[in-house]
Amino acid sequence: MVLHLLKQDQEVVKRFADDIRTAREDIQECSTCFNLSDDEVCSICADSRRDGQVICVVEGIRDILAIEETHQYRGLYHVLGGVISPIDGIGPENLHIQELLERLDRDEVKEVIMAISPTIEGETTIYYLSKLLQSTGVRISTIARGVSFGGELEYADEVTLGRSILARVPYSVSED
Amino acid sequence: MVLHLLKQDQEVVKRFADDIRTAREDIQECSTCFNLSDDEVCSICADSRRDGQVICVVEGIRDILAIEETHQYRGLYHVLGGVISPIDGIGPENLHIQELLERLDRDEVKEVIMAISPTIEGETTIYYLSKLLQSTGVRISTIARGVSFGGELEYADEVTLGRSILARVPYSVSED
Repeated sequence: MVLHLLKQDQEVVKRFADDIRTAREDIQECSTCFNLSDDEVCSICADSRRDGQVICVVEGIRDILAIEETHQYRGLYHVLGGVISPIDGIGPENLHIQELLERLDRDEVKEVIMAISPTIEGETTIYYLSKLLQSTGVRISTIARGVSFGGELEYADEVTLGRSILARVPYSVSED
Repeated sequence: MVLHLLKQDQEVVKRFADDIRTAREDIQECSTCFNLSDDEVCSICADSRRDGQVICVVEGIRDILAIEETHQYRGLYHVLGGVISPIDGIGPENLHIQELLERLDRDEVKEVIMAISPTIEGETTIYYLSKLLQSTGVRISTIARGVSFGGELEYADEVTLGRSILARVPYSVSED
């Protein structure tokens, strides 16, 4: 990258450097959901067409990008900033949990979707959060876990396959 | 393998060849579930400790091996011998569907689990079978589909992530 920059016109490089500095200065965390944002409130939180009654709780900003790419979700988000992991010294107090409780208190939220990785730390975090939210009466759900769509059954890992059988779901033929 | 065999004692190779022939001659399809079997009825169908009220429908024998390895399933199986795939010339009449209907007619079966790969052909087969079974009143379920257990959310493919959000499941904190 350095060699490439040295080959460019001085003026171009100066402008590029300015852009980087401005970007770093301007980009902040959304005060509501902790997504990256140009303004105090991010473009998702500010979008009135989105469903404010549903909050999707994610570990990080990358998860928002991944979920947005699917075009299947029209609610809001809340970035925890990680998962509970005692081995890494991350406790509930290091995550944006208090802020989530405040949002539930303040806004009319009907459902919280835990879109958290189904790892041990992730499951612990889901459990902890759900216990906390239990008294609020909000509906709590997790994203579906199981064999990947489009995947071949025999190549699924043993844990996923085993749990997918235990967590099997009723199938109903849709009307036609 | 040939070079290895040539290095062995003649008597060893003869015995090995006999074993292969016997194996091929002795192994047959289970007359009930079409699993591989030494006898007319396979060891799973013959095992009285297994739950005969649940039948897990799979594409092939490999799926039985994969599911058995998880140690999470205690019911019986039914091998279809493939999935419906017009492009490969495989229609319902090429699969062991009639035999499944006969089993449901004959035995007291309460649930049929569709443990079929969530591919397009697999979904088509699940739909076709479920329509057929609808009138029998048997409970129909599919294995859970979604983000792999232990997997990181951001690495899930777009289709799986999108559908996992749509097919999200209620989460309840277990009593403790």
